[in-house]
Amino acid sequence: MELHPIWITKSRSKMKTSSKPYYRKTKSELEVFRAANSSSLPILLKGPTGCGKTRFVEYLAVQADKPLITVACNEDTSAADLIGRFLIKDGDTIWQDGPVTRAVKTGSFLYLDEIAEAREDVVVVLHSLCDHRREIHIDRLNETVTAVPGFQLVVSFNPGYQGGLKELKPSTRQRFVSIEFNYPDQKIESEIIFNETGCKQEIADKLSALAVQIRSLDELTLRETVSTRLLIHAARLINVGLNPRIACETGIVHALTDDEETIRALRDLCNLRF
Amino acid sequence: MELHPIWITKSRSKMKTSSKPYYRKTKSELEVFRAANSSSLPILLKGPTGCGKTRFVEYLAVQADKPLITVACNEDTSAADLIGRFLIKDGDTIWQDGPVTRAVKTGSFLYLDEIAEAREDVVVVLHSLCDHRREIHIDRLNETVTAVPGFQLVVSFNPGYQGGLKELKPSTRQRFVSIEFNYPDQKIESEIIFNETGCKQEIADKLSALAVQIRSLDELTLRETVSTRLLIHAARLINVGLNPRIACETGIVHALTDDEETIRALRDLCNLRF
Amino acid sequence: MELHPIWITKSRSKMKTSSKPYYRKTKSELEVFRAANSSSLPILLKGPTGCGKTRFVEYLAVQADKPLITVACNEDTSAADLIGRFLIKDGDTIWQDGPVTRAVKTGSFLYLDEIAEAREDVVVVLHSLCDHRREIHIDRLNETVTAVPGFQLVVSFNPGYQGGLKELKPSTRQRFVSIEFNYPDQKIESEIIFNETGCKQEIADKLSALAVQIRSLDELTLRETVSTRLLIHAARLINVGLNPRIACETGIVHALTDDEETIRALRDLCNLRF
Amino acid sequence: MELHPIWITKSRSKMKTSSKPYYRKTKSELEVFRAANSSSLPILLKGPTGCGKTRFVEYLAVQADKPLITVACNEDTSAADLIGRFLIKDGDTIWQDGPVTRAVKTGSFLYLDEIAEAREDVVVVLHSLCDHRREIHIDRLNETVTAVPGFQLVVSFNPGYQGGLKELKPSTRQRFVSIEFNYPDQKIESEIIFNETGCKQEIADKLSALAVQIRSLDELTLRETVSTRLLIHAARLINVGLNPRIACETGIVHALTDDEETIRALRDLCNLRF
Amino acid sequence: MELHPIWITKSRSKMKTSSKPYYRKTKSELEVFRAANSSSLPILLKGPTGCGKTRFVEYLAVQADKPLITVACNEDTSAADLIGRFLIKDGDTIWQDGPVTRAVKTGSFLYLDEIAEAREDVVVVLHSLCDHRREIHIDRLNETVTAVPGFQLVVSFNPGYQGGLKELKPSTRQRFVSIEFNYPDQKIESEIIFNETGCKQEIADKLSALAVQIRSLDELTLRETVSTRLLIHAARLINVGLNPRIACETGIVHALTDDEETIRALRDLCNLRF
Amino acid sequence: MELHPIWITKSRSKMKTSSKPYYRKTKSELEVFRAANSSSLPILLKGPTGCGKTRFVEYLAVQADKPLITVACNEDTSAADLIGRFLIKDGDTIWQDGPVTRAVKTGSFLYLDEIAEAREDVVVVLHSLCDHRREIHIDRLNETVTAVPGFQLVVSFNPGYQGGLKELKPSTRQRFVSIEFNYPDQKIESEIIFNETGCKQEIADKLSALAVQIRSLDELTLRETVSTRLLIHAARLINVGLNPRIACETGIVHALTDDEETIRALRDLCNLRF
Repeated sequence: MELHPIWITKSRSKMKTSSKPYYRKTKSELEVFRAANSSSLPILLKGPTGCGKTRFVEYLAVQADKPLITVACNEDTSAADLIGRFLIKDGDTIWQDGPVTRAVKTGSFLYLDEIAEAREDVVVVLHSLCDHRREIHIDRLNETVTAVPGFQLVVSFNPGYQGGLKELKPSTRQRFVSIEFNYPDQKIESEIIFNETGCKQEIADKLSALAVQIRSLDELTLRETVSTRLLIHAARLINVGLNPRIACETGIVHALTDDEETIRALRDLCNLRF
Repeated sequence: MELHPIWITKSRSKMKTSSKPYYRKTKSELEVFRAANSSSLPILLKGPTGCGKTRFVEYLAVQADKPLITVACNEDTSAADLIGRFLIKDGDTIWQDGPVTRAVKTGSFLYLDEIAEAREDVVVVLHSLCDHRREIHIDRLNETVTAVPGFQLVVSFNPGYQGGLKELKPSTRQRFVSIEFNYPDQKIESEIIFNETGCKQEIADKLSALAVQIRSLDELTLRETVSTRLLIHAARLINVGLNPRIACETGIVHALTDDEETIRALRDLCNLRF
Repeated sequence: MELHPIWITKSRSKMKTSSKPYYRKTKSELEVFRAANSSSLPILLKGPTGCGKTRFVEYLAVQADKPLITVACNEDTSAADLIGRFLIKDGDTIWQDGPVTRAVKTGSFLYLDEIAEAREDVVVVLHSLCDHRREIHIDRLNETVTAVPGFQLVVSFNPGYQGGLKELKPSTRQRFVSIEFNYPDQKIESEIIFNETGCKQEIADKLSALAVQIRSLDELTLRETVSTRLLIHAARLINVGLNPRIACETGIVHALTDDEETIRALRDLCNLRF
Repeated sequence: MELHPIWITKSRSKMKTSSKPYYRKTKSELEVFRAANSSSLPILLKGPTGCGKTRFVEYLAVQADKPLITVACNEDTSAADLIGRFLIKDGDTIWQDGPVTRAVKTGSFLYLDEIAEAREDVVVVLHSLCDHRREIHIDRLNETVTAVPGFQLVVSFNPGYQGGLKELKPSTRQRFVSIEFNYPDQKIESEIIFNETGCKQEIADKLSALAVQIRSLDELTLRETVSTRLLIHAARLINVGLNPRIACETGIVHALTDDEETIRALRDLCNLRF
Repeated sequence: MELHPIWITKSRSKMKTSSKPYYRKTKSELEVFRAANSSSLPILLKGPTGCGKTRFVEYLAVQADKPLITVACNEDTSAADLIGRFLIKDGDTIWQDGPVTRAVKTGSFLYLDEIAEAREDVVVVLHSLCDHRREIHIDRLNETVTAVPGFQLVVSFNPGYQGGLKELKPSTRQRFVSIEFNYPDQKIESEIIFNETGCKQEIADKLSALAVQIRSLDELTLRETVSTRLLIHAARLINVGLNPRIACETGIVHALTDDEETIRALRDLCNLRF
Repeated sequence: MELHPIWITKSRSKMKTSSKPYYRKTKSELEVFRAANSSSLPILLKGPTGCGKTRFVEYLAVQADKPLITVACNEDTSAADLIGRFLIKDGDTIWQDGPVTRAVKTGSFLYLDEIAEAREDVVVVLHSLCDHRREIHIDRLNETVTAVPGFQLVVSFNPGYQGGLKELKPSTRQRFVSIEFNYPDQKIESEIIFNETGCKQEIADKLSALAVQIRSLDELTLRETVSTRLLIHAARLINVGLNPRIACETGIVHALTDDEETIRALRDLCNLRF
């Protein structure tokens, strides 16, 4: 009887009225997506946190003029959360489609964020949706639903996470076309910071240069290194007038580590630039 | 109250109208299947992911003109998921047969995919179905159902998985006739890629040769090596115009590993051929 | 609300009409059974899989003209599964006896297969049934049921299993008279294969000789060695015309191991005989 | 909604009509029991399986002319199993006292067998019953029940079990007067076998001598050594005509171990006497 | 739907009529309690089992003329057990305050025994009750209840337990004023035994001297050493005529250990005095 | 059906009438908060227990004239606890907003204390609230709620806890602006003690000096060192007349450790000052 209110639909109409999301191509990811999409193959985006995977999917959904249904997977996500369940409402029993069923029926883009965090049974549900069958069976309704043309499954996966503790089984993983994401080159990252925040060009340049330097220092042993998202946070704090050093310290440094020595090293790097 | 909507029935009529699935015999698997089937013995297909086990069962079901009921087993699959349960519908309590009961009653082919992933009680339920009794008992209905002639139980098992952590108990395993599957010889695999995707013969040859080479390199320490399925993915991406090197990278390389060094090694192997 | 439909009753009438099951005495097991039965002591059959424990119990139940109730124990078997539970049926609450209660009330043979797989509470429920009290208490009904004369409890246990991880507690085990089972001598095993399958005498002899040889090779490190059941499978496959070497490979070798080297060794042993 | 039908009440009337159970005093256990009982202190019986702890309690309950309520504790025993619960019966909600509540209200003897197997909350429920308060609180009924005079709590505990893995917390254990049980001296044990089974004196003497010898052999590394119960089993099997060597093998040897070498050693010891 | 009937209220009226509990001050614990109480600070009593913590709280509640509500915490104690829950009673849904809510509303003394045994969520519930807010929020009723003046929270904790495996989080622990308890000096302990049991002065002196000696022997490696409670047990058994050596053996020695060698050592110490 | 009554709302009206909480700025935390708040970024406060994190949030909520909703996270906190659930009330089903939903709808300050203690699914629910979307989806109501302007999410995290066992995932952590808290400088801490308790200046000075000394002694290996909260406890105990040495011992020393040697060391430090 638990509810896991973890998914968000962005309807087509809402998307049309809102401006198209900003997305800056970095490699051949758009071509690969289009090839997989026209071959009816599901897609796995792999890469670290905050490097633009979610933005990429949002961008493509708007481009394709498709609703986007996003599910943030976690270890409590069950098959019922995805497929649907009966609810008791005013004494009547009504069926409520889950996000997967709704996406399949409406030919939407379905984005399962951090798929490796979900339970086994969730992943297995997707198997028949990932191959030539492109269908799901709803046990409770004794109904098989075939995906409406245009339906596209995208999942994301962060391989650096937890030393690979949570991996996808090969039998699942080999059903997807995999696109690798990484942090963009400095010039492109600076452009992204500038476009996202409206900060001064100089700030964007300094922050992206700082990121390159931090990412190159393997000896920092960070769980995960600085993401484009953190650079954008710092730029926004600077925009509203916060001292750049403090903005870097609170927007970047303390988000990366709690270790005193590493904090000092990162602070020095920031202070050299600002 | 959870539902595990994990099974799919392919009705006979649907199968008749659809074209017969493509299956390329590789060893004596068809003879063994027929001998076991006419001896009323259950069958275990063992082999790696994506080597054609599921296709084999689909092919045989169509050949035998039998419905095929497939269950994707996982660690949440319970006995009730297989046998059936009472559902509350409009205030009435109705019994809904599970996939095993339906297969037993209709003399269908029942395919339990990745049986070793299922819970103990699921496996034990099958014991009386696997020996001379060929029957299941439905506790809730206090009813024993004997399998209709033609009923054939097939299960699959991937021995390479998780270092053998999830194994079948000998008391279960010794109830089955075991057919070993493996990736086909290069010539046969090339033929399969060609027939499945309609790609150029040259592409099929290169991909199958690439597979032979990757499979021979034990030093890559892949969790599971490249499957026929991945080769077919790559061929399909090439078919829709994607650069063959990018098709191999996203269709094969990143589906096999996240390790930077292994990725480079695999990329080099691909680039040597395309 | 889970159901564990794991037990099977073979009614007396059904048994009378069916032919008496074939059983070949190997040691003093029949005398011991009769002595324990007439002393009202419960019996534990210990031995490897597929050596005839279940057949032994079926044989004795028919001989004694008693119904036989079999429960396949597993780690989800709960006390309620054995004793009984209230069910909601058409709005009414009705009590449904579980297999133990039914056996106790009808003076049947009760066979708990693989007792060590069951949960602790299941085993404890049996304590008062195993000693001089010969009774169970049904909490929900606030009723004590004493076993009808003729009731005989038999449990089975496979000591080789899982390196002894699942053992019975001494306080449980010391309540039973223990009969040890093992694979029969070659001559007897050949006779069993011949009688069970109707194969040629020569095939039965070769298969039983093969079994002796495999069982003697400790260096194979099989989880469990070849059972009489597997020999019977191979004989049946040969009977319907399968090549004997393939019959041994699929009926015996691949049911015993997934290790490539061991498979080759076993295959060589088979090929030397056929 | 699970039921754990694990307790048995022996009513006073039933006891009066049945003959007084046979009990042979071995040390000062009767004096200690009487002193603890008249001091209103709870009692812990510690000792190995099958040495007469349960019989001791039955004997004392009959002597004291008190009903005896026995609960076989296990890891699924919950506080509700002991205190009571509401049941739905014919649409009405009725409270059903659990065994502890019934014992407290009727001033009975309450025997919790293998207390260390029960869950923590069960043990904690007993705390207020074990000290000067001698009362339990029934949360659901918002009622405190003080023990009727004559109520006596007895628990048993097997310290050799599982290498002390399941121990009582000191805060629980220090609430009890502890009586240590062990196997009786040979002469007394022979007398017990003779009285319990009606076997020949010579058989009783041989069996008790055998027990002394087995118990002295530390090198056998048995999980638990031979109990008086096993000797009685063997005597009963001999009584109905089974060969004494086979009776010892099935009644004693195989109940103690599955190790081939230990079985041979024990068999030799038996054969030396019979 | 489980119930955990683990708490006991001692009403003021009942306390007034009963005699004031005996309590012997050992250090400055009374002054500290009064200072913390008048500063509205919660109190943590730390010390080994059976040294008088519970008696201390009972004494103070009677002195302050306050009801005392005691909860024996265990690993199944949930927030609902403490705060309250809705119960279905005769078809109506009624709210039943849990012990914490009742104590807060009535300004009682609330004693949570062995707080470290409770689940995390229980401990967190207490946070807002422990600081200047002195209030709890009842989610289900959407109601905040502020503690009536006079409300005093006391918790107990046994630091020697389980090698510190179950500890309180610093963020919880630093909310309490901590009073350390230990076994009293010999003279005081003798006085306590004498007053509690009415035994002869000589017996009380011998038992307290025995305790001093046992507690000084670190080489005994007892999980917890002899408590004042055990000395009182022995004195009571001697009072009703049991041989003092047997009284010490069953009242003290076997309550402390199951190790044969340690039992012999403790028995020798007892026999030297009696 | 469990309830986790762990959150507290402080309404605006109540806050207005009560005096503004005392807060002493220590670094640039107020500027950072204001910058993050005007950039619509969520805030993570990291620091040890009892250093003023909660007080900081209370202070800011009053300053901003916003209601403050506080949730004490723990390992049983589920998504439903935060978002809301249907309750059965007088036979009707009514939806009850959880604290997050209420905060989002009313534009309140939402404070999730010890976020790392909460379950994964709770943290994931916050993701869409933490980025530019600033919205939550309520599955059961099929409703998306966008945060009212003024809504500010603040979470706290204690990095020293449990050796970093419970950490936030980088994908969560990189969504927050992080403000580091630590114990204040001696002069400021003395001022805080003085203002909070109304004690003599000399006492405040001595206590703050004692804290500096204890915090500098790494060799004490305390799980967490002395907090400002503990100093305030000691000052309050001294205020009501308790001997300062005893006040330090019970208010500070025993709250920090159970180790005898460390207790002696800390006691010596206290006695040198009082």
